[in-house]
Amino acid sequence: MKKIIALVAVLAALSSASVSGKIKSSVPAKVKNGTICLKTPAREKGQTSALQLRCEPISKVRVGFIGLGMRGPGAVKRFSYIDDAQIVALCDLKQENVSKCQKILSSRNCPEAREYVGDDAWKRLCESDDIDLVYICTDWVNHTPMAVYAMNQGKHVAVEVPAAMSIAECWDLVNTCEKTRRHCMMLENCVYDFFEMSVLNMAQNGVFGEVYYGEGGYIHNLTTYWDKYYNNWRLAYNNAHRGDNYPTHGIGPLCQVFGIHRGDRMTRLVSMDTSPRVGAACAKKIMGSDSYAEGDHTTTLIRTHKGKVIEIQHNVYADRPYSRLYALTGTEGYAVKYPEQNISVKGEKLERKAPDDLDVEKFAPKSFLKEVLADYEPEFAREIKDLAKKVGGHGGMDFIMDYRLVYCLKNGLPLDEDVYDAAEWSCLTELSRLSIENGNIPVEVPDFTRGEWNVIDGFSYAMAVK
Amino acid sequence: MKKIIALVAVLAALSSASVSGKIKSSVPAKVKNGTICLKTPAREKGQTSALQLRCEPISKVRVGFIGLGMRGPGAVKRFSYIDDAQIVALCDLKQENVSKCQKILSSRNCPEAREYVGDDAWKRLCESDDIDLVYICTDWVNHTPMAVYAMNQGKHVAVEVPAAMSIAECWDLVNTCEKTRRHCMMLENCVYDFFEMSVLNMAQNGVFGEVYYGEGGYIHNLTTYWDKYYNNWRLAYNNAHRGDNYPTHGIGPLCQVFGIHRGDRMTRLVSMDTSPRVGAACAKKIMGSDSYAEGDHTTTLIRTHKGKVIEIQHNVYADRPYSRLYALTGTEGYAVKYPEQNISVKGEKLERKAPDDLDVEKFAPKSFLKEVLADYEPEFAREIKDLAKKVGGHGGMDFIMDYRLVYCLKNGLPLDEDVYDAAEWSCLTELSRLSIENGNIPVEVPDFTRGEWNVIDGFSYAMAVK
Repeated sequence: MKKIIALVAVLAALSSASVSGKIKSSVPAKVKNGTICLKTPAREKGQTSALQLRCEPISKVRVGFIGLGMRGPGAVKRFSYIDDAQIVALCDLKQENVSKCQKILSSRNCPEAREYVGDDAWKRLCESDDIDLVYICTDWVNHTPMAVYAMNQGKHVAVEVPAAMSIAECWDLVNTCEKTRRHCMMLENCVYDFFEMSVLNMAQNGVFGEVYYGEGGYIHNLTTYWDKYYNNWRLAYNNAHRGDNYPTHGIGPLCQVFGIHRGDRMTRLVSMDTSPRVGAACAKKIMGSDSYAEGDHTTTLIRTHKGKVIEIQHNVYADRPYSRLYALTGTEGYAVKYPEQNISVKGEKLERKAPDDLDVEKFAPKSFLKEVLADYEPEFAREIKDLAKKVGGHGGMDFIMDYRLVYCLKNGLPLDEDVYDAAEWSCLTELSRLSIENGNIPVEVPDFTRGEWNVIDGFSYAMAVK
Repeated sequence: MKKIIALVAVLAALSSASVSGKIKSSVPAKVKNGTICLKTPAREKGQTSALQLRCEPISKVRVGFIGLGMRGPGAVKRFSYIDDAQIVALCDLKQENVSKCQKILSSRNCPEAREYVGDDAWKRLCESDDIDLVYICTDWVNHTPMAVYAMNQGKHVAVEVPAAMSIAECWDLVNTCEKTRRHCMMLENCVYDFFEMSVLNMAQNGVFGEVYYGEGGYIHNLTTYWDKYYNNWRLAYNNAHRGDNYPTHGIGPLCQVFGIHRGDRMTRLVSMDTSPRVGAACAKKIMGSDSYAEGDHTTTLIRTHKGKVIEIQHNVYADRPYSRLYALTGTEGYAVKYPEQNISVKGEKLERKAPDDLDVEKFAPKSFLKEVLADYEPEFAREIKDLAKKVGGHGGMDFIMDYRLVYCLKNGLPLDEDVYDAAEWSCLTELSRLSIENGNIPVEVPDFTRGEWNVIDGFSYAMAVK
């Protein structure tokens, strides 16, 4: 009996790597071979894969916007430039935010939109029968509930980043999309930045050989932004949640390069953070907090089935220039975006003064870089570039994102960013937290396609036959 | 009984995170709370701490060099410029390498040195009674055995990087130093590069606030170097060993900034690599290997007692410019060396054209950077800068390293890089391998000071009283 008790004690000590002895996860989790494994829910009856989901073409996409505080008004303005879209509804907690957007519409000679104001007004917007697309720009925690509700009302959904804040929410999005056959696109704009689009095209054409290491991130000093979030929701979220709470700008463009759920998939990750210093001081000052959760700097390493690695960093506190890193290492070249765009590729030999001088290896000449970026710009981007830069939104990438969304809906094409992208890119939030809170142990990345990650061969922009 | 068997089975599955079920480590290891923990050997009787070790001043430091193939001849040349040193012995497997170094001596008007040639000749060099310092520039696997032998013969030791290739070897160095009271300095030159020295000084003076995240690495395309290593030893080592096999250039300068074993210590790490692509192809071509171990890119995340994080990368295969990263994030600023030296510091406000334009945040002006780097240059570096740049060795840093070594020996001062640095910076090799080979689980970093990591308050260069 003593032996049994001893065994049970040891077993208890070993069965979880967590200091607290229990994995606090949004879905059932266990530790197996030192790795946190999350349960994959079974696909319910009548629910089928939404890979390459095509829906009925929509000649004029009727849009309703929810959340008009920060990101919303810009989206309204951008949509006013898209001929194939019509803004029919505006929703916010505050009348003043709705009114501001009405002014944008009138200044653009667009008809006035129907107004939805107040706590549950968004539900009525989702329920109305003259809307094709619900465009969600609220605080993070409302993204998934609203997206799920909208899909269940038969609407396509575009939802700001991150689309989901937990693994359970990721599955909610996937399951609802697979059940309702409605699109669910996360509005990850950074995949449409010009450098990223050209470099993706270059990578897909083997310019860098086989890309096997990618670095991305979100390094953006938000000190001057904290008071702009309604009811301080963003700092409050970070105050309560450890981990990389904003991973999608970093991971999105890399997943397109790596063909995630399009021939490869993320299998496991480990994450490590610094303790909170600047963040804790901010929260102390702004909200009187004595227990800030999110570390100032969080780094996550992700391995793929094909033996590639993606590194993602997060830091919204450092007093330094903005960076999403965006660096790709391939067997025959390298590309990096921050702090300065550079590539080195096969054929463009690295200059070197003397074998002893390590500091003089050079990137390819800027003139070459300029040429090659232009050469590899996707055709659709070239066509709408001038308009995109005029309309703006982070230099044009926001407009290209909206343009592509409407283009694909109009033509009944699969969207560039599908619900599996939304889940894969958003899931890092909880997965990084799980790794960190349990002593930096590895975590398995769920396969949200449930085994179909190898069906599609690489990322591509769906285009209508001309 | 069935229950017991079931328990034992589960226990066996959980007791090790390794796929193979056993941790292959150079010292006894176990998995505890999901983390690999290595046994710290007890300090033997008569062995005491070597922190701040001071030895008898040596008016003229008599040096014997072992290994004159790649790094050796440069060291011989540099020492010929140091007045307080005298080159008395040269040792190599090949006579021609010894003869080449004799020519260096004669061209510098230095006396001819005693020659040691052949397999065990290095032992005779170590045993000779007219040598104060044995300077070891051989292949990696001979570093620790030779360093230990030399210390046991009463000699101070300087040994190329990495000083040790396993945790067992790290302990051998520490224990031998603590027992013999002879210095053991690993020749990590990168801590003496000018940018690193100025930025270290700035960090120590709070210019960046509290530095909490550091990035370092060794990214150096060795394609044109592989055939220069005697008997192909370097590629052969990487062929047989997974993990970051060359971490010291990256970790060294960061450990000085973070005050490792000088107020803080590395507590745990996780490591992840890509599968070998370029490396495997090289090894296939050069040595007919079908099973290359080292991944093309290896990344290691290390947490410190004070909740800071150090990230180290390794890639000797990528067709891209050289980089050691060297980036520091602090609560009030940022510094980065590669691909271009830049800082942003308190008081030098980040320029920003418009709130929407993320790409225009700027580093401090170059003129400011130049001024501040000069202002914070250590005095000794300023004094010997011209000579260092004239003599050369990676732009002068190698000479400054040798100069400081001889200066401290001459004045009976503690060396800048002590045996604990050698162990801490070298230990990442085996620790990263252990993490990677066992599914990226965390590994505890040994405390080579055995509890005295908090005795010294920050790194400093020991200086003689003028």
